Amino acid sequence: MKKLNVAIVGATGIVGQETIKILEERNFPVAELKLFASSHSAGRKLEFNSREIEVEELSSRSFSGVDLAFFSAGGEISKKYALKAVKAGAVVIDKSSVFRMDNQVPLVVPEVNPRDTFKHNGIIANPNCSTIQLVVALKPIYDLVGIKRLIISTYQSVSGSGKDAVDELYKQTEQFLSKTKISRQIYPHQIAFNVLPHIDVFEDNAFTKEEMKLIHETKKILNDNKIKITATTARIPVFIGHAESVYLETEQHLSISKLKMLYMKTEGIKLVDDLENAKYPLPIMSEVYDDVMIGRIRKDIANENGINLWIVANNIRKGAALNAVQIAEILFS
Amino acid sequence: MKKLNVAIVGATGIVGQETIKILEERNFPVAELKLFASSHSAGRKLEFNSREIEVEELSSRSFSGVDLAFFSAGGEISKKYALKAVKAGAVVIDKSSVFRMDNQVPLVVPEVNPRDTFKHNGIIANPNCSTIQLVVALKPIYDLVGIKRLIISTYQSVSGSGKDAVDELYKQTEQFLSKTKISRQIYPHQIAFNVLPHIDVFEDNAFTKEEMKLIHETKKILNDNKIKITATTARIPVFIGHAESVYLETEQHLSISKLKMLYMKTEGIKLVDDLENAKYPLPIMSEVYDDVMIGRIRKDIANENGINLWIVANNIRKGAALNAVQIAEILFS
Repeated sequence: MKKLNVAIVGATGIVGQETIKILEERNFPVAELKLFASSHSAGRKLEFNSREIEVEELSSRSFSGVDLAFFSAGGEISKKYALKAVKAGAVVIDKSSVFRMDNQVPLVVPEVNPRDTFKHNGIIANPNCSTIQLVVALKPIYDLVGIKRLIISTYQSVSGSGKDAVDELYKQTEQFLSKTKISRQIYPHQIAFNVLPHIDVFEDNAFTKEEMKLIHETKKILNDNKIKITATTARIPVFIGHAESVYLETEQHLSISKLKMLYMKTEGIKLVDDLENAKYPLPIMSEVYDDVMIGRIRKDIANENGINLWIVANNIRKGAALNAVQIAEILFS
Repeated sequence: MKKLNVAIVGATGIVGQETIKILEERNFPVAELKLFASSHSAGRKLEFNSREIEVEELSSRSFSGVDLAFFSAGGEISKKYALKAVKAGAVVIDKSSVFRMDNQVPLVVPEVNPRDTFKHNGIIANPNCSTIQLVVALKPIYDLVGIKRLIISTYQSVSGSGKDAVDELYKQTEQFLSKTKISRQIYPHQIAFNVLPHIDVFEDNAFTKEEMKLIHETKKILNDNKIKITATTARIPVFIGHAESVYLETEQHLSISKLKMLYMKTEGIKLVDDLENAKYPLPIMSEVYDDVMIGRIRKDIANENGINLWIVANNIRKGAALNAVQIAEILFS
């Protein structure tokens, strides 16, 4: 692989910092790494391969000479700067939701639709965290027996809302333990020791945008508009790792033993399903494992073609930064 | 109502203490209140109507003269003493799972199947906490348009596992914040800042007993074995209040506006569904409201007869102690 000039937009955020770490871990062929953030964070120094790099304020001229730009600074920044980066000659891997449903923009999970990567016109979209782990788990089933129906309930960690949300859960937990008044800034209600069935904004159909992302993005990535999907997404007081309770109905019959065998040999999936020893995927395990973890696999007792799954992954790594770097690896290898 | 001699077995547990509180709150016609627990707790004093009552050690002779006995000391104690209490002349309202599926024992939620109460042969079973709030929400729909299909994912608080589990979540949270090693006794894994898809023991079909309770009890209470139900139950780091993400398919069409109207006029239900103002049911609200709270009501975009609900209730009160006292009120009024 030839060495690339890489830019990270939103370098000081949770996903930006994890992206730097992953480029280093995976020995990504970086010639020069440029880190961008708002004026607020400019001047901070972050480490990459034992070198300190100063964070610069993002501007229209930031992308000159850049081959590859990771965007994780939110939708507004992507809207304003992604096309500027493309014009300057960079390929953009965008982690916001802005371009995901654009017909001209591939939406890629490397384990699922790697070839879509090459259909890009300068921008490749990284799916929503909750979508990524879902489609990784669905793909082997989809390819083998088809999927008709999906009913999903999520248990999502606060790191999905960024660093301030992580701080809010810490702070509220301390306040709760010390019996002082709970303060809040990020979430509309206390998140400590509570559950909020509300992620992103509400749409006219009474679903949240997060729920609709999960529905639309899954169809786009599997390239199948006929799958019937419904979803409820909830925020829980967990720092890292999203869990999903997924019910699916297959087109054709699939035995549980066959499905487990399939998962055991699928790249990117870790089967964690040993009930006798109380082994099943847990959010805290996602701090250790990068694979999408799947467990509690069982046949619906009411439907021969119904299967229940419990899916957990690290929302910052596989759900964002790692998936984006994997896309870059496909593109430039 | 004539005054009754009432016994509480398991008086020092979370549910037992809440039962004492509710008898007082609802001005239940108590002549004498007898409190029983294990030898470990005998001698403790608990307050009822500004009087101190000494907790006695439970024995085979405890039920002499008792008209009504609430059991909340776990399955083993119910197995050993419930029939003794009946023989001594008491009616037993049992909160364990031991008798729930017994054909001779009615399983009652007062808002749903109050008349079943009178079919008892000495024992009336109180359903599992997660079942109670579910059937309260389902009943108005079931009566109006029928229900074919239920897919449930739960978010259950630690108080459902008793006082020691509440202490464990507190302690682990403190340990986490102070960066000391997490200790555990009750749950097989850390519960603080984590989710465990594991409540009660695993059965041969890979469902947990908690999941199977939800399935079997719902069918028994609605007196309908044809409803197809699947469930995933998970424990989350919340102290009080269970949440449920429920997808249901009705036999006939039901509009969302009609359903909301129905809920608004149904006793025991509080509609909390104002998305513009971010109002939806939250576990922490269940410390204030006794009603089963329902929100996030919406039509499945993939199925005209599909409806999504988010249901929250206090698992200690409506999910246990309050429901049991309501059963007693039906019986003795």
